[in-house]
Amino acid sequence: MPEWRKDPVVERWVIISTERSKRPTDYLTAPDACQGCECPLCEGHEEETPPEIVAFRERESMANHPGWWVRVVPNKFPAVKIEGGTIKHRHGIYEVMDGFGAHEVIIETTEHTRLLHEVSPYQMAEVIWAWRYRMLDLRRDRRFKYILLFKNYGARGGASLEHSHSQIIATPMVPADVHEEILGAREYRQSTGACVYCDVIRQELAEDARLVHQNESFLSFNPFASRFPFETWIIPREHQADFAAMGEHEVNALARITLDTLNSLMRTLRHAPYNLVVHTTPVNGGEEHDYHWHIEILPRLTRMAGFELGTGYFINPTPPEMAAQELRAAPMAGCVGASREEVPHYV
Amino acid sequence: MPEWRKDPVVERWVIISTERSKRPTDYLTAPDACQGCECPLCEGHEEETPPEIVAFRERESMANHPGWWVRVVPNKFPAVKIEGGTIKHRHGIYEVMDGFGAHEVIIETTEHTRLLHEVSPYQMAEVIWAWRYRMLDLRRDRRFKYILLFKNYGARGGASLEHSHSQIIATPMVPADVHEEILGAREYRQSTGACVYCDVIRQELAEDARLVHQNESFLSFNPFASRFPFETWIIPREHQADFAAMGEHEVNALARITLDTLNSLMRTLRHAPYNLVVHTTPVNGGEEHDYHWHIEILPRLTRMAGFELGTGYFINPTPPEMAAQELRAAPMAGCVGASREEVPHYV
Repeated sequence: MPEWRKDPVVERWVIISTERSKRPTDYLTAPDACQGCECPLCEGHEEETPPEIVAFRERESMANHPGWWVRVVPNKFPAVKIEGGTIKHRHGIYEVMDGFGAHEVIIETTEHTRLLHEVSPYQMAEVIWAWRYRMLDLRRDRRFKYILLFKNYGARGGASLEHSHSQIIATPMVPADVHEEILGAREYRQSTGACVYCDVIRQELAEDARLVHQNESFLSFNPFASRFPFETWIIPREHQADFAAMGEHEVNALARITLDTLNSLMRTLRHAPYNLVVHTTPVNGGEEHDYHWHIEILPRLTRMAGFELGTGYFINPTPPEMAAQELRAAPMAGCVGASREEVPHYV
Repeated sequence: MPEWRKDPVVERWVIISTERSKRPTDYLTAPDACQGCECPLCEGHEEETPPEIVAFRERESMANHPGWWVRVVPNKFPAVKIEGGTIKHRHGIYEVMDGFGAHEVIIETTEHTRLLHEVSPYQMAEVIWAWRYRMLDLRRDRRFKYILLFKNYGARGGASLEHSHSQIIATPMVPADVHEEILGAREYRQSTGACVYCDVIRQELAEDARLVHQNESFLSFNPFASRFPFETWIIPREHQADFAAMGEHEVNALARITLDTLNSLMRTLRHAPYNLVVHTTPVNGGEEHDYHWHIEILPRLTRMAGFELGTGYFINPTPPEMAAQELRAAPMAGCVGASREEVPHYV
């Protein structure tokens, strides 16, 4: 019997189809073709991007030249622009505002063919430091109310460049979906006195049916009302509203669990396309201490079609309990065939 | 300069990228491969579907045999099932309910390769009668609160069978997106005394910048805050909350404008995948007379990726004013190259 499952935070129901359940091999997709040396994100092609905003690079190296390991540049084809204003005006009954915002690209590696789950734990931590730095720097512009950090991987995941990169879009309003989560978290706090995400963590640890990985600071799990097959969240154990509030120890722990989790997903789903989205508190007046930041990894194995677009609900053919089982059974890096317990962590 | 545009009904902002604007030829996609005579929806293969719920068929013909022109069957692989209950229960902090619902398939033609925009006006009206009949019949089950009618066309539109068909999923709750629209319409009524959709119609007719087609009962237009390139809505001129309240004259007028609109889209976008969703009032206690039913046609030329999934907002690279211009210039059926004004209507 399939189930309707309601997200514990927002008013969102998901049909979990227990009988149409798909196994990982049902979803196999081929990796994308190589763009090779035409790629503007590769080392040695620095002049093909707009001038860098920041780069982690060797002391002797020059900006916009080789010598970097993580590099942040403005998006060459930005969806939003920094020049606009934030004043709304009316067009008859409609409301309009300049397309104000910031749109940046974080280049996660110099190597064209290295994917994010294949980088070293050190490099992964450096990527997270770059994310954190941009989040802190962008909020200094008081017009930004939210700083969205996301990554699209694979053509079906919406990536137009295959070289590993993530993106930031900073917006002058709090996005509807984030706002809805915050309202849900606030309501839960008011009625129970607790953080809904902290309670989710408590139940996931107790039940141990949807957990994928954990370390001293984080856990990753397949949420109860997963919208997408193999949807996996990474969340800090301790209540923390702001992604950018992480210290060095937490950044290193996040680097490890992100690599562990992406590796489990990539090995299980054979490089399926995915979207990764950081959910964190709004900024510049919208800070919400009842919120609990987390990362959502959304494999794109199913299509969003008439049902999803007509309802805001989703059909997910893989129960999260099955997803967790598959992901926990996935062999870890360098140890194909070994069980999870036998494999040392990356750091 | 791109623009943020706010939907007039729900709290949804769209970035209209005026400078990255794409023209129809930027989106060309090939039609899908033919499944030919393996298709369970074809005439002569009636035994390959579950027994029919209703069919419009020749007087002498037998149920589940040839002789029909529109046929409605239960989905062989339903996302929801009619056997379940509607009682919610708790699983720790989570809420769960049986996967109760109805999932039906409306087969829109006997011919495997005929697409919906290629059927006769008579056949199109018959399809609409079948939609209307199922909406009226399903609401007799008081457990259903909403009856969603949608169509997925093309593999990227989520269609798993190429034979032209639409689907109904009846649900025991009002979907979040529909609920949000209703709240928006109610709020607008309370603050202005008017129907927001009626006011949209008034402005679209006055402005004439986003209209595509119109007849005595309907108009089709590209909404001001279109989420998707070439998103096109069909809406009745007169305020009407319930799709199933249409009479014979309106069904025939809807058949004509649906064909006109789909033909313009298909000729402009060369058989791009699309989703078509009927938005109508909830049923069985949720009737909302402030609502105004309409059909949304959503071409799937862009990918929903990290930005859309992280915000609930959209990036649309084609301004609706440009979309309307392109669609109005599209040659009509049988008269390639002729101007729109010279072409007689289908009926």
